[in-house]
Amino acid sequence: MTALFDQITIVGMGLMGGSVGLSVKKKKIAKRVVALARNPKARAAILKAKAADAVFTDYVDAIPGSQLVLLAVPVSAMEACAKDVWMHVAPEAAVTDVGSVKQPVVAALEKIFARKGKFVGSHPMAGSEKSGMDAARADLFDKALCIVTPSEQTDPKALRSVQKFWASLGCRISLVGAGDHDRIIAAVSHLPHVLASALMHTALKASGGYEDPMKFIGPSFRDMTRVAASSPELWADILLANRREVLRCLAVATEQLEGVAAMLESPDKQGLMEFFDKARALRNKIS
Amino acid sequence: MTALFDQITIVGMGLMGGSVGLSVKKKKIAKRVVALARNPKARAAILKAKAADAVFTDYVDAIPGSQLVLLAVPVSAMEACAKDVWMHVAPEAAVTDVGSVKQPVVAALEKIFARKGKFVGSHPMAGSEKSGMDAARADLFDKALCIVTPSEQTDPKALRSVQKFWASLGCRISLVGAGDHDRIIAAVSHLPHVLASALMHTALKASGGYEDPMKFIGPSFRDMTRVAASSPELWADILLANRREVLRCLAVATEQLEGVAAMLESPDKQGLMEFFDKARALRNKIS
Repeated sequence: MTALFDQITIVGMGLMGGSVGLSVKKKKIAKRVVALARNPKARAAILKAKAADAVFTDYVDAIPGSQLVLLAVPVSAMEACAKDVWMHVAPEAAVTDVGSVKQPVVAALEKIFARKGKFVGSHPMAGSEKSGMDAARADLFDKALCIVTPSEQTDPKALRSVQKFWASLGCRISLVGAGDHDRIIAAVSHLPHVLASALMHTALKASGGYEDPMKFIGPSFRDMTRVAASSPELWADILLANRREVLRCLAVATEQLEGVAAMLESPDKQGLMEFFDKARALRNKIS
Repeated sequence: MTALFDQITIVGMGLMGGSVGLSVKKKKIAKRVVALARNPKARAAILKAKAADAVFTDYVDAIPGSQLVLLAVPVSAMEACAKDVWMHVAPEAAVTDVGSVKQPVVAALEKIFARKGKFVGSHPMAGSEKSGMDAARADLFDKALCIVTPSEQTDPKALRSVQKFWASLGCRISLVGAGDHDRIIAAVSHLPHVLASALMHTALKASGGYEDPMKFIGPSFRDMTRVAASSPELWADILLANRREVLRCLAVATEQLEGVAAMLESPDKQGLMEFFDKARALRNKIS
């Protein structure tokens, strides 16, 4: 296969950026992969893992000459990072990101890249409770869903380029507006993260100080709390960037728990069975 | 290895009873395994799977001659089942159960078996979102935790017998009082079940009617909602049997969600990071 790109740049080499680097190198999607990373330890790890052909610390070295620039930094760092990229980006280069929140990122970055560089928002839904280059994997994106969020201002050529990029990494692509993305992802990703952490706190508090309640967990507790081990800073950032939608989800979730409590108080066995039955029917539709 | 028992009886051959039967036969823990099952289809499946040597529909045929009787019926059916077992049980036979709630079961069954039969409560923490004999597996109990709940009235010989039984199936054993069991398990098992189902309902409601939100789920949502596919009747029963403890957990969980909502409203990034950080530290202590 001919390489899709002569050169791409990945800004930020954590779990996401690092995994993109490994995958692009493995699948020969670009002739040259340039990484921008500031931590000296990370730079050594990137070269050792062959996640990039070259690693720079300055935008002036890392950005020029790339047809695609991927911003793989936390949501709260996205805008500052985009301004630095903009200084050095080629006018026709596609720029995309990996942020878990899209509306504020797309609004800010479309403004920044209005005169040069062609921005298209992306959210590859792959990840892990681990973070950092050490946790990066070439197969992270295999069969993952990547949501791409074009707007009326999106350059069609850049959109095609970004879609091809994610597809070549193994992603299924779905095109969704940034606002719809944030509403849906609050419900299916951001809320679950809050619930996982809330469950850890609750289990400790509610088990009444009897020895170590964690001695008594089974597989379901383990599965439900796995993402509670994720990076606290990353997730505080994500939730704050999407706080209106997350607040709406928390209100609905609280209502649901209050509904169950009322049925237990009654007690209303029929109501509880319907609650579980409807949840089961919904769950059985997914694999 | 010599068989531990000449004969055991399993009353109820769903996922739990069926898996015990398969495991006892495979590991030759009893010379003869007798099952009690009323559904004709289930009886054929039990014999076909070799989960028992004989299947009866009446207690008078299934109970006599067994040194251990396992009640593997839903929590709400336990008391009625125990009364039928009592009629035919040998005075010195150990009787145990698999109920996910212990205080009401132990209280009722200790009374029933006060004059003959020696009852000890058990809760093997193994299972699946699937149910029925078809989902039974000989390895369901390998390395699972089995909580055994002796009281002051427990016969020491029966306790040893029940402990040996679960250990021979591959379980790790933990001895806990029935009340403590119910408090801890409400927090680490019953509450997670409610949260999984509540998350299914919330995801649907909160995603704002945009197409099918389930198209956008990732691995964390899948893991967190897996148990929402469990039997609605079984779980309505369990929650009602342990409703005081589950209500307490729901109150704590609701408080946690309200706390997160308040931090998002502020916004309080430091507070959110501490919330996630503490949850992560707790989660990292378990494997």
